[in-house]
Amino acid sequence: MDALARLRSKLEDMHGLDAVTLLLVWDQRTMMPAGAAATRGRHTGLLQRLGHEMLISPEVGKLIEESERLDLDPDSDDGALVRLARRAFDKAVTVPASLVEEISQAAAEGNQAWVEAKEASDFARFLPALERNVELRLRYVECFEPRAEPYDILLDDYEPEMETAEVRRIFEEIKPELVALAAERREGVDDSFLTGDFPLDRQEALSRELVDLFGTRPATWRVDPTPHPFAAGAGRDDVRITTHYFPDNLDSLFATIHEYGHGLYEHQVPEALAHLPTGTGASLGLHESQSRLWENLVGRSEPFWRFFYPRLQARFPEALGGVERERFVAAINKVEPSLIRIHADEVTYGLHVMLRFELEQDIVNGRVELRDLPEAWNAKIWDYLGVEVPNDAQGVLQDMHWSGGMIGYFSTYLLGTVMSVQIWEAAMRDIGDLDESIEQGEFAPLREWLGEHVHAYGRKFSPQETLRRATGSTIDAKPYLAYLRRKYGAPVAA
Amino acid sequence: MDALARLRSKLEDMHGLDAVTLLLVWDQRTMMPAGAAATRGRHTGLLQRLGHEMLISPEVGKLIEESERLDLDPDSDDGALVRLARRAFDKAVTVPASLVEEISQAAAEGNQAWVEAKEASDFARFLPALERNVELRLRYVECFEPRAEPYDILLDDYEPEMETAEVRRIFEEIKPELVALAAERREGVDDSFLTGDFPLDRQEALSRELVDLFGTRPATWRVDPTPHPFAAGAGRDDVRITTHYFPDNLDSLFATIHEYGHGLYEHQVPEALAHLPTGTGASLGLHESQSRLWENLVGRSEPFWRFFYPRLQARFPEALGGVERERFVAAINKVEPSLIRIHADEVTYGLHVMLRFELEQDIVNGRVELRDLPEAWNAKIWDYLGVEVPNDAQGVLQDMHWSGGMIGYFSTYLLGTVMSVQIWEAAMRDIGDLDESIEQGEFAPLREWLGEHVHAYGRKFSPQETLRRATGSTIDAKPYLAYLRRKYGAPVAA
Repeated sequence: MDALARLRSKLEDMHGLDAVTLLLVWDQRTMMPAGAAATRGRHTGLLQRLGHEMLISPEVGKLIEESERLDLDPDSDDGALVRLARRAFDKAVTVPASLVEEISQAAAEGNQAWVEAKEASDFARFLPALERNVELRLRYVECFEPRAEPYDILLDDYEPEMETAEVRRIFEEIKPELVALAAERREGVDDSFLTGDFPLDRQEALSRELVDLFGTRPATWRVDPTPHPFAAGAGRDDVRITTHYFPDNLDSLFATIHEYGHGLYEHQVPEALAHLPTGTGASLGLHESQSRLWENLVGRSEPFWRFFYPRLQARFPEALGGVERERFVAAINKVEPSLIRIHADEVTYGLHVMLRFELEQDIVNGRVELRDLPEAWNAKIWDYLGVEVPNDAQGVLQDMHWSGGMIGYFSTYLLGTVMSVQIWEAAMRDIGDLDESIEQGEFAPLREWLGEHVHAYGRKFSPQETLRRATGSTIDAKPYLAYLRRKYGAPVAA
Repeated sequence: MDALARLRSKLEDMHGLDAVTLLLVWDQRTMMPAGAAATRGRHTGLLQRLGHEMLISPEVGKLIEESERLDLDPDSDDGALVRLARRAFDKAVTVPASLVEEISQAAAEGNQAWVEAKEASDFARFLPALERNVELRLRYVECFEPRAEPYDILLDDYEPEMETAEVRRIFEEIKPELVALAAERREGVDDSFLTGDFPLDRQEALSRELVDLFGTRPATWRVDPTPHPFAAGAGRDDVRITTHYFPDNLDSLFATIHEYGHGLYEHQVPEALAHLPTGTGASLGLHESQSRLWENLVGRSEPFWRFFYPRLQARFPEALGGVERERFVAAINKVEPSLIRIHADEVTYGLHVMLRFELEQDIVNGRVELRDLPEAWNAKIWDYLGVEVPNDAQGVLQDMHWSGGMIGYFSTYLLGTVMSVQIWEAAMRDIGDLDESIEQGEFAPLREWLGEHVHAYGRKFSPQETLRRATGSTIDAKPYLAYLRRKYGAPVAA
């Protein structure tokens, strides 16, 4: 075997270990008896360690070097694979194994501390674990060559090749508009009928109906209940999404549509990339563009509900039989400043993300003492959304990310939302009658367009290069802002 | 780290890969979308290959040698671990990687061929795959130093250190008695009420009730439905048993009790061995002794049903409300020669196993042409059980084992059954009022006795040494024969 074939084979093994790890995570959150948690931690740790050891082995380093000398077409599958391997190898060998181990240990402990602190709504109980995780992240940053800002190095792990300054520029462009729209939309839209009796078995059937309606290859997906919705799986023909069913509301509907978007991305990577590190989504941001596209551009749109609302009413005649479609669509698009990011509407969601992005930069640059974080959090929520935070559980402790040292992750949620509108508009241009097909309940045109223009690249290129190939442009806030203005700039019919 | 500590750490990694593989197998049979089968094969193959590469590495060979020089107490955990590692290492380095690969490939293809042949009830369609698998097994045998008989080498993979001659001796001792008992018991026992309406949800609740009644540590077990019942899991606190629910009979009840026995063995290996190759059952035979003990000695006994029958009646009042306990116990112990091993009663089950054991020896010693196997099979069934085989699906094609080249496996079913009675009688001697406690619905005494006298050794010793420590004797058919004579020698009340 030549160097390239041997490198491919090594990378397939590493990708296999990652895929199995994802399955173990899925199992842990859906099926595993709780008493097995410690053993499960051991097993996921083992697979991660074996993959890491493979990656940083001198043999793989040499195979990458030899493959680079082949001067492969950078657009080819193999050219992209070698580029991705180089990137992963260089990062992995830069960080000492002992620090990787410390970070993973601190994340596990931080997570536990966060669970307890959130339950007690007591930030002070979380503070020592947070300090430890932040300190380790700063040591992680120091392993690398300095970049324009230290935060760049953290961001790069979640959104490759994206710069903090660029994110800041986009967010600053968006912020005043969101603040204005959020303030504007304080008047009442009736959404009382979204709280009511929605039997769980019918919600579960609805989730499956949606996944089948949007479309998948046969016998390749699962939908299961979990406290926190997510998408995982062990390959393009083993897609597993989860959702949270509440007996008194329809939140599961949008969670399912959102996770369908994530699942479809993995489902439609090309068979040729399927078992390689290039055979997955390009970044968290681009992944989020897919989930947000289905959730918001499809799932909260007029055309979709013109098709689907009678079906929803048929499932829940008691709760929705007497509610006209126009009132329903207005209700699911209601803008209302609130405390919790994951329940926020399309307009205020971005402000939740921005305040986290800003605080993270303050943390990394030492501009805020960690013990003052709740105060800083509460002040920003008041500034941007005009609401008061009653306690830490509903404020600074609401998200898990920081407890595992994941600093740089949050911004990808909003970057993805911004990109979702660019991608949607490119699809509209190409498909022409996209709205009409959705109104007919036909999702193949959109699904196939995404497959061809976004998913087909897998992780071959950087997220921005992938976006450029899909839409003709790198990230741009203007389409997103125009969309928000069109949709939320004037009161919707109540 | 010294050599022993490093060896332990390597063996923990290998055991971890095995545990994850078991979880993948469980997932494949219970949860996985069917379309993911090819990728799953890739992933289990990867984990097996990584474990095999670890085991045969020169580094591990050297660590074993160095650890052996420590002259550890052979009864100690570490002494047993080094002995087990030596055994596994020597076996693994003896078989060329290419043959391992061929065997695994032929097994996968053989399985597929068997499924199709069984569906068509056409042995000829299975013959080429069987020939290939047998040929590879014979090549496997040739890798090793000759032993008294070639079959010894195959048997050793399933029942370590057991000799074919010993199995033959035991089986020959048992056979005439079983043939006689099976012939004797041809008169009618009414079991018509075991066929009827047994709603699936109530059977599922019954399975969970039984597992809880027999006892487990909290939040450590799952019970799921599958076409073929099995026990698996990823550790002593992650035990997963499955059972097959039929809407018109209660077979699931005994399947659940049987799998509980397997699960409990893994559940009660000591914490100190939990993550090591010594932390599992000693052999297939000893594992089967545990499942058969619970299924037959507990689950088909008078004392158990004196306690549990009212509860069963309460679950199925329509089907069993008018059936007295004595009639029920007679029915679940009915002896009736039949075609299918997995549905056979306690008496005829052994004959099903023996005919397979005999045919396997004929195969390995070239005394039967594989194309004549159906004929040889049917003749033996007629000799031992007096029934005629109507077609291959209900004859030679009924079991999956040979399709994967698993020759030597079947005998462990009967060895386990024989040992189950020895273990039961040792427990009776030690506990004294075992029957009384079971009649009170108290299973802790039996569970704890098994934990202390059988499960505590894990795989530290050979199965026969484990049995000797538990019961004072190695395998002995006499208690089993005496038990059968007591139970089946005179007609039970009908």
